[in-house]
Amino acid sequence: MKLASLKTGGRDGTLVVVSRDLVTCQAVPKIARTLQAALDDWDAVAPRLQAVYDKLNNGSADQAESFIEMDCHSPLPRAYQWADGSAYINHVELVRKARNAEVPASFYTDPLMYQGGGDSFIGPCDPIAVMSEDWGVDLEAEVAVVTGDVPMGASIDEAAKAIRLVMLVNDVSLRNLIPGELAKGFGFYQSKPASAFSPVAVTPDELGDAWLDSKLHLPLLVTVNDEPFGKPNAGEDMTFSFAQLVSHAAKTRELGAGSIIGSGTVSNKQGGLHGSSIANGGVGYCCLAELRMYETIELGAPATPFLRFGDNVRIEMLDLDGASIFGAIDHEVRHYHGAHSHERKE
Amino acid sequence: MKLASLKTGGRDGTLVVVSRDLVTCQAVPKIARTLQAALDDWDAVAPRLQAVYDKLNNGSADQAESFIEMDCHSPLPRAYQWADGSAYINHVELVRKARNAEVPASFYTDPLMYQGGGDSFIGPCDPIAVMSEDWGVDLEAEVAVVTGDVPMGASIDEAAKAIRLVMLVNDVSLRNLIPGELAKGFGFYQSKPASAFSPVAVTPDELGDAWLDSKLHLPLLVTVNDEPFGKPNAGEDMTFSFAQLVSHAAKTRELGAGSIIGSGTVSNKQGGLHGSSIANGGVGYCCLAELRMYETIELGAPATPFLRFGDNVRIEMLDLDGASIFGAIDHEVRHYHGAHSHERKE
Repeated sequence: MKLASLKTGGRDGTLVVVSRDLVTCQAVPKIARTLQAALDDWDAVAPRLQAVYDKLNNGSADQAESFIEMDCHSPLPRAYQWADGSAYINHVELVRKARNAEVPASFYTDPLMYQGGGDSFIGPCDPIAVMSEDWGVDLEAEVAVVTGDVPMGASIDEAAKAIRLVMLVNDVSLRNLIPGELAKGFGFYQSKPASAFSPVAVTPDELGDAWLDSKLHLPLLVTVNDEPFGKPNAGEDMTFSFAQLVSHAAKTRELGAGSIIGSGTVSNKQGGLHGSSIANGGVGYCCLAELRMYETIELGAPATPFLRFGDNVRIEMLDLDGASIFGAIDHEVRHYHGAHSHERKE
Repeated sequence: MKLASLKTGGRDGTLVVVSRDLVTCQAVPKIARTLQAALDDWDAVAPRLQAVYDKLNNGSADQAESFIEMDCHSPLPRAYQWADGSAYINHVELVRKARNAEVPASFYTDPLMYQGGGDSFIGPCDPIAVMSEDWGVDLEAEVAVVTGDVPMGASIDEAAKAIRLVMLVNDVSLRNLIPGELAKGFGFYQSKPASAFSPVAVTPDELGDAWLDSKLHLPLLVTVNDEPFGKPNAGEDMTFSFAQLVSHAAKTRELGAGSIIGSGTVSNKQGGLHGSSIANGGVGYCCLAELRMYETIELGAPATPFLRFGDNVRIEMLDLDGASIFGAIDHEVRHYHGAHSHERKE
């Protein structure tokens, strides 16, 4: 089934079940007011949500309304845990190659993962608000899963069974703040501001054969300023599956229901700079940094700038029939104007 | 005023107002069911909670019940953001000295801060559950604040005004996992499992003159296995105030109401190993790692082991009259037995 959170109803929004074709939706206040509430009591709630979903799809829902992606917040407008892996090692290999460094052997067996902040995500169609273009604003198009409760030390099989939902992410990154921050040794903080998630989160069964071995085997479509920028297959070159990432996250702690675990920037192995862009027959990129790394490797320096105020990013995934699965993250970079977004919305 | 969350009532517990002397409390379901709900709507809710607090203190509350610290979860049993600074540079200086490295000059002007996981904190009297003693289990006794909404780019003054509550923390750390994890470059994840917070969180006004310039000027009392281990003054040698830490956290993102920002391990500058322990007239330590660093600097190697199964840690702070302000974090290390704590509690 497909679930979303409308912005109305408070900080956690209002849970709606969305029809498969993303045309209609229905609020379910008697089942669960918010997605977090549904995840907190998933085994009891999911069958009841599924019944609403079935009615929406066969046209028998009596309280269906139009589903409008612009009205959505991220499926979890805020989350108790957001941790992001870096499962596409090609991305890491390019980073290292651009600075003539080796990839440590352990990176192929021990996932990279950083702890993100979950207190205030961006809505899928809301601006990426930053105070300065000098921060080096970049997109990172990714896939993420939402878990149920995961016990400490969960095996990969147990982790796979704890995956409740799948969605897309724009893990906005401030590239020019990263080197200084990582040099301090404590990981990302200021360089990883609020992320945005796709309007719709779906249960893995919704993905059919495209969900295999806890990987999502479909192209992730990225445009920048309406130009095709990336279409790598998210199931290819993913060194660690979502089950492996969740198991990694749970090694020393329990994960609470509603924890979001991301894949890291989707990246497929390709030839060199010339053939890697979509225009030249490649699958393109899911972040500007990757293109800039190709440029650094082959031209000696990056040529493509990071995002500027007004630049638009769109991230979407289509099923084999060409229909949007998750709706689209579709937003632009804007200058932050100083009032807290929570106050702006009220 | 003083607030706590009883474990009953679901994953977020039940908000209670607690009397100043920690003897009685009262649930306030008509005002706010949970602490997060109170923080989400603080300006409207706080005066109503204060009225209950006043009645509890003057003995006129008609629904008062006994306050029992053992029945408490952490004030926020789960939080949308938990980020921990490292504001006591003495701690960092010792780490560096123990490995003959310099402290970068920027560390005195740019706070270290790591993003923690907030999805499943430990109750203040619940065990520190780990799967192996080999992980090098250590305490980190700290102070933390809970914020309201903080706009991006908040000044230090704005940040100071956004501090809603103060509490104590045990930022449990797995020392033997830290070097390998930090070497990967993405910061802490597996090496920082669930933290525990004091039973009670208090508004800054409750601290009187001890809350000055966004620092808490009282000794933080730590015992390990009932022996005095640390009593450093949390207001001394704190290079960055809480307002500075909150402002740092908000540089590139908004902070949502209920964000927890920690001080890092409290640490006072002292003489050498001999005079730093409480037994020898010093103020002791807030983590075993610090004692082990003194031992490394003076003896060539650490001598004190990390925590073992059954070891007890107690963290508390007394006011000038000797009364406990926050109640005590009081728990022991236990072997994790494999069922998710949420299921155990239900």
